Amino acid sequence: MINSEYLEMTNAPSVIRALSVYATERGKEIGYENVFDYSLGNPSVPVPDKLTRAMIELLQTKDSSYLHGYSPNPGNPIARKAVADSLSRRFGIKYGPEHIFMTSGAAGAIAHAVRCVTKPGDEILTFAPYFPEYNPYINKSGAVLKVVPADTESFQINFDKFEEMISDKTMAVLINTPNNPSGIVYSSETLKKLADILTKKQSEYGHEIFIISDEPYREIVFEGVDAPYVSKFYDNTLSCYSYSKSLSIPGERLGYVAVNPKAVKADMIVPMCCQISRGTGHNCPASLIQLAVAQCVDMTSDLSVYETNMNILYKELTSLGFEVVKPGGTFYIFPKAPEPDAIAFSEKAKKYDLILVPSDSFGVKGYFRMAYCIDTEKVERSLDALRRLMKNEY
Amino acid sequence: MINSEYLEMTNAPSVIRALSVYATERGKEIGYENVFDYSLGNPSVPVPDKLTRAMIELLQTKDSSYLHGYSPNPGNPIARKAVADSLSRRFGIKYGPEHIFMTSGAAGAIAHAVRCVTKPGDEILTFAPYFPEYNPYINKSGAVLKVVPADTESFQINFDKFEEMISDKTMAVLINTPNNPSGIVYSSETLKKLADILTKKQSEYGHEIFIISDEPYREIVFEGVDAPYVSKFYDNTLSCYSYSKSLSIPGERLGYVAVNPKAVKADMIVPMCCQISRGTGHNCPASLIQLAVAQCVDMTSDLSVYETNMNILYKELTSLGFEVVKPGGTFYIFPKAPEPDAIAFSEKAKKYDLILVPSDSFGVKGYFRMAYCIDTEKVERSLDALRRLMKNEY
Repeated sequence: MINSEYLEMTNAPSVIRALSVYATERGKEIGYENVFDYSLGNPSVPVPDKLTRAMIELLQTKDSSYLHGYSPNPGNPIARKAVADSLSRRFGIKYGPEHIFMTSGAAGAIAHAVRCVTKPGDEILTFAPYFPEYNPYINKSGAVLKVVPADTESFQINFDKFEEMISDKTMAVLINTPNNPSGIVYSSETLKKLADILTKKQSEYGHEIFIISDEPYREIVFEGVDAPYVSKFYDNTLSCYSYSKSLSIPGERLGYVAVNPKAVKADMIVPMCCQISRGTGHNCPASLIQLAVAQCVDMTSDLSVYETNMNILYKELTSLGFEVVKPGGTFYIFPKAPEPDAIAFSEKAKKYDLILVPSDSFGVKGYFRMAYCIDTEKVERSLDALRRLMKNEY
Repeated sequence: MINSEYLEMTNAPSVIRALSVYATERGKEIGYENVFDYSLGNPSVPVPDKLTRAMIELLQTKDSSYLHGYSPNPGNPIARKAVADSLSRRFGIKYGPEHIFMTSGAAGAIAHAVRCVTKPGDEILTFAPYFPEYNPYINKSGAVLKVVPADTESFQINFDKFEEMISDKTMAVLINTPNNPSGIVYSSETLKKLADILTKKQSEYGHEIFIISDEPYREIVFEGVDAPYVSKFYDNTLSCYSYSKSLSIPGERLGYVAVNPKAVKADMIVPMCCQISRGTGHNCPASLIQLAVAQCVDMTSDLSVYETNMNILYKELTSLGFEVVKPGGTFYIFPKAPEPDAIAFSEKAKKYDLILVPSDSFGVKGYFRMAYCIDTEKVERSLDALRRLMKNEY
């Protein structure tokens, strides 16, 4: 019989998706080049040539059963070793292939990490502003997501609220740095303080509390910003990664869980992930792309356009009087709306063909997100629309 | 905190996997060419040249954001249209792209289909012998898998037992034809009778009962065998497919759910699948392979080796006195063991370096499965081992 819960969910599309559909429809009327669509976080830069060449060369030279045969459940051994070696080199934690579980993107990684360290009814805390898809990711696993209110001064962690909310039901903390939607990078000070509290609480409650670290923007960090590697601060950390942004291959859905080798049961987490897949219908990610990315783990696409765009927008927004914390990475910026109702503000912006996402679904009211993974030329053309919006409406 | 249930599951590896590991270890001692490894259903034939050429051409000529950008949640529109058109042409059901949900293989397809048509606590019936992974596929969704005992005469459906077991808690029936492990193809008569019973029971219970049809072996059908398309017999059918076997790309994990356009809520099933993905961490399958397979939906690899191997084995097994129903498709054969304890028989076979999977985990005792997706030359060499096994042990 038709499942009524999922049927009803189809009636509640996401705000971001709805704005994106609006932008596409508006584009049909006035030309999409005239719609300043800051709705979707869809990478715009080309993949590295080396990655394309690697795929072509594999297809031209290797046997098809090597390229397209079954991978073992935790991933292709070549890919797992390449990831482990790269992380070890870059971050000074000694990962082995046995600590790497290849996944279908960051969503797949989080789905496994959550199930590894919670059982139904357990609580996971995350920090506003946060990616709204965390709600189905966590709640549909049976665990319960609780959102710690934002520190709107800095968009680091609101530790007072965190200490009020953590309890012996808290089995994991889900963080995202560099952050969607704020663009903020957690400082070493923030991560150290978080680790200290968790260490204390682990001991107080007598059970592990894991950090699930969602890191798809790890490689998009701007000049002068220190982006510390989360797992270095706290042993019980599961790092969830995706190559969607760093290599501009979001459609290939390739990511991983990296288990800190000093975590509790570190050597069992990957075998547990294999068991979890059996129940969710997750499969090891596609084989050809694993083999090709294994040759490119230390590189990224040319990501400089995101910083260029950020600087243009940050300068204009501040000169127009917006309160905005300067992003340290990602391709998002998260200014305060000029009125308390961000949804009303986003509606007004539409009149100027500016598509801005109100902050409500990110767990904080009165802000808006701009995803500036678009051409710089379009960012520049959008500034006049921003100026007109502010002049005519406020 | 570490989830103890998944941790414990790591201690119970599958019988098939354990035998495969044994075969690999034994191969290190005596040379893998001397191990007659019939354990794993891992396709052995090359992918069609056209598919390889399609991937290379796409990589050489198309923009990387076209090739590797986000696909919409239900799949790349080109792939969905190609699948819908191909199914419509071949099976005379008028599918539109809106009825096709692209998945990460058949496991992903079943994971979505199950959640579409059951809620936790609902029952799904399947028919022995059956693929043992159906247990985690179904039970981890919250639904409950119940296994109807086998009709060991024909390995069609045991309708008497089915009618005893169906109840108003039955929300779906999961079938697999051509069948793993028996190799049997359900006849039109079987499917018609199944459809008649379900139609009657739907009316009696006042709710839909769906068929979830697991069809990864749909294209591996032997000469003279009629393999009817399940969905033609019953409107409330969700067809779950994988290209793993037909195109020999198991590592690429590409499949789909095809919703019969006359099913209840037919136009809502794909949107519901998109909602289900949000909770399981499933992502739309990899983009490049979707685009390439879209050009090859009406073709298969050269699958003739499977029929060649089946004929060799069937002839030898029958001449050795095995009771065996002749397979109509797949790359499996499922003879009766010469003693009631199939596990003991499988152990004895190891002495002759024959790796045979006992039937117990397939839901029937006293049989064994041979996966003959191996080189014909090796099948031929294995016959002497089979003869020695029978002569010395029985």
